[in-house]
Amino acid sequence: MAAEIAEQPAVLAGLLSEGAAGIAALGTRIAAFGPRFVLIAARGTSDHAALYAKYLVEVRLQLPAGLVSPSTLTLYGSRPDLSNVLFLAISQSGGSPDLVGSVEAARSCGAMTVAVTNNLSSALVAAAAHHVDIRAGRELAVAATKTYTAELLALYLLLCGGDAAAVPEAADRTLAGAPLAYAAAERYRSVQRLVTIARGFSYPTAREAALKVMETSYLSAQAFSGADLLHGPFAMIGPELPVIAIVTPGVGGAAMRQVLARLEAADADILRVGAESGGLPVASAGVAEELHPILEILPLQQLAWRLALDRGGDPDRPRGLSKVTQTW
Amino acid sequence: MAAEIAEQPAVLAGLLSEGAAGIAALGTRIAAFGPRFVLIAARGTSDHAALYAKYLVEVRLQLPAGLVSPSTLTLYGSRPDLSNVLFLAISQSGGSPDLVGSVEAARSCGAMTVAVTNNLSSALVAAAAHHVDIRAGRELAVAATKTYTAELLALYLLLCGGDAAAVPEAADRTLAGAPLAYAAAERYRSVQRLVTIARGFSYPTAREAALKVMETSYLSAQAFSGADLLHGPFAMIGPELPVIAIVTPGVGGAAMRQVLARLEAADADILRVGAESGGLPVASAGVAEELHPILEILPLQQLAWRLALDRGGDPDRPRGLSKVTQTW
Repeated sequence: MAAEIAEQPAVLAGLLSEGAAGIAALGTRIAAFGPRFVLIAARGTSDHAALYAKYLVEVRLQLPAGLVSPSTLTLYGSRPDLSNVLFLAISQSGGSPDLVGSVEAARSCGAMTVAVTNNLSSALVAAAAHHVDIRAGRELAVAATKTYTAELLALYLLLCGGDAAAVPEAADRTLAGAPLAYAAAERYRSVQRLVTIARGFSYPTAREAALKVMETSYLSAQAFSGADLLHGPFAMIGPELPVIAIVTPGVGGAAMRQVLARLEAADADILRVGAESGGLPVASAGVAEELHPILEILPLQQLAWRLALDRGGDPDRPRGLSKVTQTW
Repeated sequence: MAAEIAEQPAVLAGLLSEGAAGIAALGTRIAAFGPRFVLIAARGTSDHAALYAKYLVEVRLQLPAGLVSPSTLTLYGSRPDLSNVLFLAISQSGGSPDLVGSVEAARSCGAMTVAVTNNLSSALVAAAAHHVDIRAGRELAVAATKTYTAELLALYLLLCGGDAAAVPEAADRTLAGAPLAYAAAERYRSVQRLVTIARGFSYPTAREAALKVMETSYLSAQAFSGADLLHGPFAMIGPELPVIAIVTPGVGGAAMRQVLARLEAADADILRVGAESGGLPVASAGVAEELHPILEILPLQQLAWRLALDRGGDPDRPRGLSKVTQTW
């Protein structure tokens, strides 16, 4: 896991140099197809990349989007009219039967189907009409890291086609803050639970950070949009429940001010990620807000890895998990 | 909260006798409008009603659906083409500015907008072209109970128009299991965290049950779709982390078998809700699977209420919350 975390700047640079042209070509085909809206299906870590893609579609493409509940297409056998719909399926392994089944169903219902995956010989690629290779190289750790950031970058290139040249070096600079992430892990050494929060493009980061901590350290880590936290779950907040807030500069970070003020008033124990000062730094200067999620997760991956070690676990062998999860 | 939990059979019966005709008339207008897809916006408890509506739309209407991230319409100012789109906004109070803002944006983008609310004099009703009155009567407890089940029934009547006549009496029979729910609360008296799981139509129940426990007892309660649990969070599972599984008969409950077998192998402490025997009973016989969520949540509301008392809290006054949450 540590090696794969460290590998990310090179993976991102490789995707830009080797993969961007092919992805841009598919992006052009999608634009020509002119989808009326976009459906996205995924599970686990890739579901957070799906959420990121949803924000890109809604904000940048100005199209409505929905995250698919795979069970409605598979278990319940729903067959909606999906003509003029773009259907993205995102999966590192491309191997989960319910995801493959949902792509097959979507294709038979008329959607333009695209598999975004790290495994070109997967059933998902066979099921979809098109695919995007995220080119992350084989991922051995059960906890996905480099395939997550590669999925984010691939989705950005596919859907926005913008300039992401600054990302690999910014990732490198962000990873250099490892000592701060490791020191922060100390704070959570003996807690059983924590909360992660963010808004807008950074909300997927909060979700993915919570999953990393759950799967490597067995903490109950809950992610909330800053707005949703105030609708009920805020009752849990107190000095005994640590909060990790992602607040890189931009619209999402600015919208967190209302939430942070409430948290401070409740004496919450807050770790800020990406704030202008203090907390865990993110090298977001000169990088568009839409690309921040690729950087924000890096110190949180480092934190999750170190926390697992500090708690006597093995981040490379989380109990009860295998690399490819098969669900029906 | 206890009074409002007990009131639900009468609220549901009243909605059927007084409200169903008007809701059906609006349902006919929606069918005539012929939406190409459906967007749904909500926060907090109502967001779980939104998730329920998403399953209804996907499975029963055979239309694609998406849950709106309100921030993309408000904070990020996205203005997608929403012609031929049905936009549902669900809110007990109808008062949260970001929800009102998202309805205004959706209406200006061409959507048919419908407010589903308990407050006819709310800004949400003023902003939407149409509205559904859930007729739950004034809700005083901060933790929503009767407005949740009334929202579910109203959405079922609006989107499916099916026969729900058996629901009030089934709700009454389910509530009669209160002693079992109170006894179950004992199990969680000193835990800091738990997990709730379900699949399909019951997944919103898992989400809402987790929220009830969070907001009344300050537990970290996490809800997962049974399939998503296996993708990462399963590493947390062990005898020390209690699991509440919603398994009423039907497609969703049947799909839980794979997950329950994994949980049993991991020695998890499982409470089954709605199983044929054991656990907390749900009077689902003779009630369509799509309507089970209205019943399943009832023993879990009772459990959350009792758990708050058992832990020395006041379920009617959760810390840090007010009845109307305003977020931007």
